[in-house]
This record gives sequence, C-alpha cells and structure tokens, in this order.
Amino acid sequence: AVSLYGPYPSQVPIPFVNKEGDTPGDEALMKATTYKDLEGYSDYRDRGTPDEWVPRDGRLIRLTGRHPFNVEPPMDILYQNRFITPSSLHYVRNHGACPRLLWDTHILEVAGISVKKKFKAISMDELANMGPPREIPVTVACAGNRRKEQNMIRRTIGFNWGPCAVATSVWKGVLVRDLLLAAGVSDDPHTMFGLHVEFLGFEDLPNKVGPGPFPEEQWGSRVKFGTGIPLSRVMNPAFDIMIAYGQNGEKLAPDHGYPIRLIVPGYTAARNIKWLKQINAIPHVTRNHYYYHNNRVLPPHVSSEDAEVEDWFYKPEYIFNEHNINAAIAIPRYGEEILMTGESLSDDFNVGGYAYTGGGRAVTRVDISLDGGETWKLAKLDKKEKTTGYGMNWCWVWWDYKLTVADIIGVQEIYCRAWDSSNNRQPDKPIWNLMGMGNNHHYKLVVDFTKNKDGNNVFKFLHPIQAGEIKGGWMTERSGKPDTAGYGKVNSEADYNCRVEAAEGKSIYMSKIPDAVLKKTSSTGDRMSLISS
Amino acid sequence: AVSLYGPYPSQVPIPFVNKEGDTPGDEALMKATTYKDLEGYSDYRDRGTPDEWVPRDGRLIRLTGRHPFNVEPPMDILYQNRFITPSSLHYVRNHGACPRLLWDTHILEVAGISVKKKFKAISMDELANMGPPREIPVTVACAGNRRKEQNMIRRTIGFNWGPCAVATSVWKGVLVRDLLLAAGVSDDPHTMFGLHVEFLGFEDLPNKVGPGPFPEEQWGSRVKFGTGIPLSRVMNPAFDIMIAYGQNGEKLAPDHGYPIRLIVPGYTAARNIKWLKQINAIPHVTRNHYYYHNNRVLPPHVSSEDAEVEDWFYKPEYIFNEHNINAAIAIPRYGEEILMTGESLSDDFNVGGYAYTGGGRAVTRVDISLDGGETWKLAKLDKKEKTTGYGMNWCWVWWDYKLTVADIIGVQEIYCRAWDSSNNRQPDKPIWNLMGMGNNHHYKLVVDFTKNKDGNNVFKFLHPIQAGEIKGGWMTERSGKPDTAGYGKVNSEADYNCRVEAAEGKSIYMSKIPDAVLKKTSSTGDRMSLISS
Repeated sequence: AVSLYGPYPSQVPIPFVNKEGDTPGDEALMKATTYKDLEGYSDYRDRGTPDEWVPRDGRLIRLTGRHPFNVEPPMDILYQNRFITPSSLHYVRNHGACPRLLWDTHILEVAGISVKKKFKAISMDELANMGPPREIPVTVACAGNRRKEQNMIRRTIGFNWGPCAVATSVWKGVLVRDLLLAAGVSDDPHTMFGLHVEFLGFEDLPNKVGPGPFPEEQWGSRVKFGTGIPLSRVMNPAFDIMIAYGQNGEKLAPDHGYPIRLIVPGYTAARNIKWLKQINAIPHVTRNHYYYHNNRVLPPHVSSEDAEVEDWFYKPEYIFNEHNINAAIAIPRYGEEILMTGESLSDDFNVGGYAYTGGGRAVTRVDISLDGGETWKLAKLDKKEKTTGYGMNWCWVWWDYKLTVADIIGVQEIYCRAWDSSNNRQPDKPIWNLMGMGNNHHYKLVVDFTKNKDGNNVFKFLHPIQAGEIKGGWMTERSGKPDTAGYGKVNSEADYNCRVEAAEGKSIYMSKIPDAVLKKTSSTGDRMSLISS
Repeated sequence: AVSLYGPYPSQVPIPFVNKEGDTPGDEALMKATTYKDLEGYSDYRDRGTPDEWVPRDGRLIRLTGRHPFNVEPPMDILYQNRFITPSSLHYVRNHGACPRLLWDTHILEVAGISVKKKFKAISMDELANMGPPREIPVTVACAGNRRKEQNMIRRTIGFNWGPCAVATSVWKGVLVRDLLLAAGVSDDPHTMFGLHVEFLGFEDLPNKVGPGPFPEEQWGSRVKFGTGIPLSRVMNPAFDIMIAYGQNGEKLAPDHGYPIRLIVPGYTAARNIKWLKQINAIPHVTRNHYYYHNNRVLPPHVSSEDAEVEDWFYKPEYIFNEHNINAAIAIPRYGEEILMTGESLSDDFNVGGYAYTGGGRAVTRVDISLDGGETWKLAKLDKKEKTTGYGMNWCWVWWDYKLTVADIIGVQEIYCRAWDSSNNRQPDKPIWNLMGMGNNHHYKLVVDFTKNKDGNNVFKFLHPIQAGEIKGGWMTERSGKPDTAGYGKVNSEADYNCRVEAAEGKSIYMSKIPDAVLKKTSSTGDRMSLISS
C-alpha cells in the first residue's frame, strides 16, 4: 500500500499549548515519530478526565466540550492533506472514555455458531500473523457529517458536526471472512443465509437503555457499543470487511480503536466498531442498542417523542448503513479573502473539496455552479484510489476547479454537487431528520464583495456554518436558509434555537507552529488559530 | 418461485384487431395458453415487416412507428398487474427485427481464456440441464425510462419512452458464474482480476459504426448488440448474473430473447443481452459498439456533435449500469376524473405507483406531497420480493396512499419521491442529458378542478406526458415545465420542438375484450382504447 499511497504523512499530534506552556518544545516534536512519544504531553483540556493520557492534536475542534472526545479537524487542514488523513488529524467520535488497552493483553473473543475452541480467544499477535494481511485505503465518514447545517434549520438530537467528520486512512488487517472461515464458520449458501455477525466493542457505556422490542433481553444500565452485519455480506470478499490493526503504516491511535477496530468499507462510521472485543455468529439480527439507536434517517415528521413511543428506531427501512452521495467545498476556506483589483482579474484560484459515496460505488462527477444551479461545470477529479479487483471503490476523491478573479464578478454563491456510479446525485435541498444524519444536499458557499481591513476590494467567502460551537456562517448571519426542510411549518421559535456559543478557550495563548515541524507533519497554521477563529 | 410469487398471470397476448377483423376470436383467445398458440394472428401493423410472425399484444403502445418494435404498456395496465408483469405486456426494446431462433438449433458459444473445449458450443438442452436452476424475480428497466419528460424540455437523441419501460418477471436460468466455473474459468482472485466477460447477441444490426478509439478493431457495417462485465462481478454469486431460459414459468417470449437472454439484476436493461449467442472471457474491457454508445448519462452541456468529436461515449465515468432511484405514479390514470359533490367528500381513492433502484439496494420509502414539496407523507409499500440470501433486492415495489376527495380540495399537484437503502432519494428537478437517460426527478401529477361532460364538478388528473407520439400531458399543455434542466439557456426555439404527433392508426375499429378473456389474462380495458386515447 505504501508504494501506491505512501509515503504516509507524519501522524505526530501537535498538542494544544496552554497558559503554563508545559507542552513539548519544538525539539521534542521534531524527535517524536509516533503518538506514544508524546504521552505525558496531554491537552490541558483533558486534565482531570479519564483521557488525560491520550496525546491529541490541539487543532482538532472540540464539539462536545471537554469530554467525551468528539472532534473534527479544520477544513483547510483536511484539504491540505487530501487523500490520506494523518491519524492525529482524523475526526473522532467517542461515546465515553478512550479505553486504555494493551496489545499484549487484549483478547478478541469469537463466539457463536460452529466456532472452533481455539478461535474463541485470539491474541493480537495471533491476529496479526493470521495469513497475508489486507491493506487498503478506506474513507470513514460519520453518518452525522454536515449535521450542523440541519441544526441551523431545526435542532436535531445530535451535536454540531461540521463537514469534516470524514477521513481516509490506509487500514491494514484481517478480513473477518478469513478469520471466520479459519474458525470453522461456513460460507456455504445452504447454511449461512439467515445468520448474522455481531461485533461488540470494549466500552461499557453508562447509558441507561432498555431492551427495545426484545422482551427476552435483559435491561441493563450499561451497554457495549456494537453492530451487526448479515453473515453473507461479511463472507463476501468483495466487501472487504476487516479487523484492522494498522493505520497508515503504524498501529492504531488510541482514539481510533487501538489495538483493533472493525472496518466496514462503504458503511457509515458507527458500524466500524472501535476497541473491538467480541465477534458473535448468531442466528438473528443483533439486538445491540446502538445498532438501533444510531444511524437512522427517520422521516422528517418524526419527533423525539414519536421515535420512542412508536418504535421508529426499530423499523428496518430507516437504517443508514451505506453512505449516500455527498460532497463539500474545502477551499476557499471560511473567511478567506481574494483581492480584487484591475491587476488581479486574471489571477486564478482553486475551488476544491471532497466527495464520497457508499456501497463500493465510485464518485464519477463533481459539478460546480456559479449561477444558483442554472448551469454547472465539471470539476477535475483527483482519484488516487485504485479500484479493488472486485470493482469496489471505498474512498473519497478530492476535486478542484480553477477560477479567475474575473470569473466571480457578480457571483453570489458557489455550489458543488457530486454524482456516483449509480447516477445518484446530491439533492438541492436538505431534508431534516431527528438524528440529523445523511445530510447531503448541495454544499453552498456565499461570495461577498466587500472591503478588507485595509480598505481594498475583496471577495470574501462564507461557508454555511462553522463546526461545533464556533460562531459564523451564512446560515446564521444571512437570510436564505430553508425555513423548513420537508417537515412543514416550524411549531415554535424554540425550534430554531441552535446553541451557537463562543468556542471554549477563545483567548488562549497563541504560538506559531515552527515551519520545520509543519513541513514534517504536512500540516499548516497556528496551533490555535483555527480553534479560536 | 411459483410458491413465492405465483400463480403467474396469463401471458397470452391479445392481438390488435384490424379493419378486416382477421384476429383470433374470443374462443381462440380462451383456448390459447402460450404465445405460440397465437402464431399466425399477427398485429396488422407488423404485416410486411420481418416481425409479422410474432404474436403481440395490441395494447402495447408503439413508440417508433411500425418497426423496429419498441413498445410500452399503458400505465394502468402495468398497475393492475403490479408485482409480476405478464411477458406479453412487458415493454420491448428491439434494435432490429426480432430473431426467429429455435430451441433445438440455437447454440451458445463460449470462448476465451481457459474455456474447455466441450463448453465452446452449448445446446439449449445442455444449458437447461446444467445443475439446479436459479429462479428469481428481477425488475428489468430501460435506462431511458421516463425519457419523454426530458424530450419535452429539449430534444434528446432518444425516442419517447413514457414511464412504463419497466417490468418484472420471474426469470429462470443458470448463473453465468456456474457456467464459467464448469467451463474451466477460475474465480481465484489471483487470476480473475482484470479479466472481463463479453456478452453478444444474435442480432446483426445494420448500423454503420466505427471502431471508436480502438484502432486495432475492424470497421464494420454490421455489429452485434453486446456488453461486458468484469469477471469478478460475474463470478460473485451475490449479483445473480444469469442466462435465463424461463420467464414467469414459460419459455421466453420471442421479443424478450427466446430462447435465452442475459439477466443482470440491478443493471439497466440494455446490459441484459437478448437472443444471447456468445460469451467471451477476455483480458480487456469489451470494445462492443453498444457498450459505449448506449446507457450514458453525459453532462448536460454535451451536444450530439461534442459527443462524437470529443469521444464522450468512451469516457468511463458517464456509464449508466446500476439504476438510480426512481418512482412514478400510475393511478389516478391519465385523464381520470373523480366526482366532487357534497356526498363524495369522504369517498376515498388510491394514489399508487412503482419505485425501483439499482445495485441490489432496497426501495425503503416512497413519499407523497400534496403541497408542492413542502411536506411529505409516507406511502404504504407493498414489497413482494423476498430479499436474497446475499441481502440483495432486484425488484420494484408498488406503493399506495389512500386519500379522500376532501383531501385534494385546493391541491394543485401530487408528487411522489422514493428513497433507497443508501438513503439516496429522487431529485426535485430533471437534469437534461443527450441520451435522455436516468431521468428520475419527482414524478408530478397535476390536479384540475373542472367540470366533466355532464356538467358535474370533478377532479381530473393530468400526467406530465403520454408515451410515444400520443398527445397530452401537463408538460405540453401547461406552463411550469422547467425551461432548462442544468444546461443553461436554450439556444433556439427548435430545441423545444418535440414531435408530439397523433398516434398512428387513431381511428381504428374498436372492440371490447370479453370479460372472460380479461379475467383469464389479468388485464383490463379496450383492445384499442389506450392506444388511441
């Protein structure tokens, strides 16, 4: 994989600097080669939480306060890294504390129908030595990516993901198919149909959740994060469902499931169980709470109360497994200014961003509109992924469209719209849903013609939102956002009230990241600037 | 399959009656049990064409004049049959004369990499006795289904398909995988990646076509209709790619490929090669003309001339293999009137139609809007198909939504919109493309409040178009159709000129189909009424 996609970017996190300045100096940063080398230099915001041992990059935007750790990178940093995201800058969705597991003691338990005894407890070394590994790039995207745009229309039950809950790593591991075949589970159609594989993580989440519509299940105060997939899908080698122990040439980072996680290419990320602990071959669909109460695109009229009372989370037709087609603009970045003078008219600049889809389909096209969707131009796709032998595509593409300054005179908005190999394309308008998932309408940038602080004419670019609690975006500052999104009139003003508060720690001490470190880490920017902007 | 989906509807075609009346009498119709029993009773429009031996149902709407035979059924007949379409009412897309092949003499040729000698020429009996057959319902839909709606905006290079170029049969046959494995072709990933399977039909089409960008190919004045699929896809049992010799419990009808055709579930119909003659395992993508010059969704700015000069047909990203999500309203039917009186307010009626998607995905949702897309209601899905063991769905669903007369007071339009299991949904607006393919925007019915010929108040329903050269539809009669569809301003009035001429043979003698025959054939209506309306 290195020959195809490498060399990998450095994945050493650049910790947040706090007032006391007790962060690694430039020398320590330069010497560090992995996450581990920075243990002890925790982000000050993690002090006193169960996660204070985890080295983390300070540029990641915290979306749910200090803890649990739910973050996405600023969009221009995602853009700079393009195809492969350093694991230190990969978005994180943690439901609780990051488990502190060890390679030498973690055991994967395999249970259920016809599993041989010697496969019931597998050490990490055994797993890593189990036949030739599979190593492929896979884009992992949260089902809630771009949710904040929905929250600006009407509050969903989910937090404010911006458009960067998506990242690509080269994952290395063992196909679950190969593990199960070795363990004695058959892929014979006469016996495998109707069977399912349940995957459970290590976490013991404190949610007080019930057994749902499964009266025979025990009501528990704690529950594992898990999912399930039909055995026939798991056994199909085309789908590349794997247990990963490597990420971009290193072991997994703690926040990404160290020592092992499930990777289900083409599926929403919550199905990619981190800190994988148990695999069970079972004769029915999993009854795990998170399989049902996660990744559901409910009809827009379903309220939080309806969902519980009418069991909407348990209706199979609203599950969100395979991604739909999605794309967003990364540059020009939020607030970027382009000088407009007589001399600058022929200067060019890029509009660029990502596009991804699900189920192994390829992104085939990204269109740009400068006239409100009347006409569209073809962007240039930068497809780095080599389609698998089975014809599957598991990765995003990055795309670019070159414009001159003259091209955007009079332009009010820039839209992008992606298509996939099934000729599905992004819809014009959002459709609100209770969990704020699968949001994939045209991504729109507003172009302002204005003066900069020096009094010069500039074009200034406004994205719809900024991630998390960061203020700003045309959806808050301008008219023109959809009043409703498929659910009819809004009932009360309260529906609109989206918490758009200042980011925590806005006035924290700033320091430039030294150029040498930046160059080494393939990243740019202030340590703080994108947190507090 | 009969136990799941049967009993099958009668598939005896009801021939068109001509002025001389030399059509089968009711008695002959009642006695007939298959197509063959009606040989000799040809449709008068086929007299003098190479197809005059083929028995055909007179209710099928001819879209390209008398010959070649390109037809679709009236939409209310499709609706009446719902899940399984009788083969006699299945839409037909023929590029030339219907080949007159015989079961006893037709030979399937298998050639290419590592094919054993004894498999190079396979008789139909050998094929039918090759291991246990696969028998499953599959929806076959033309990539150009609903094209006439695009033609009403701007003329494409394709003819006027209405919304009924879609049908479902229970197909019975041999998986190509099983045939190739028996013939000695390996499905080992170490050898099969990069190989392709080419499928060619029997037809020798008169198109004068060149070798495209393949200089080593010979320029020919005649060409077979064909396609190609990567070997790894063909070999994957989940995709059910098969050679079919049975349709709804009978042999294939001549217009549907007798004695054998390819069935590629989830793909556009032009990949389902009829009158299958050759299968070639080859080390490159097929160079067959029709693989490139068919089933392409080109960007809207590409004109017919651009397409040739700039080789757009050969750019792989615009291929249309897997269907996108689509749906249409079948009832109320075109021109249907519902009486509006004080007493009728609580009467109910159905809005109903079909929805399908591609790639094995399931149709999960169909929404109805009565307020121009502001709010949507969930229709009731009638999913008859049993999902395959591999989790695949190959069939349309029919759906219904019950309304009362009171519900549609003040309603101007009824929209439908389907979703699939990847949470892709139909887009709001059409995007025009040169071949008029993949048209899948919201299907819209106009509701008129007017008086019927007796002077009573009625709601009257208008579909966007009527199939073929039949006049009528809100896209011709009303304002409100899109001026453009993604390609910018129309250049000239000529672009709008869509031939909407009267159907051929409009004043032909009419006769009622006897109730007994109708009951037997699961069909309704006048022999002629829907042709000439």
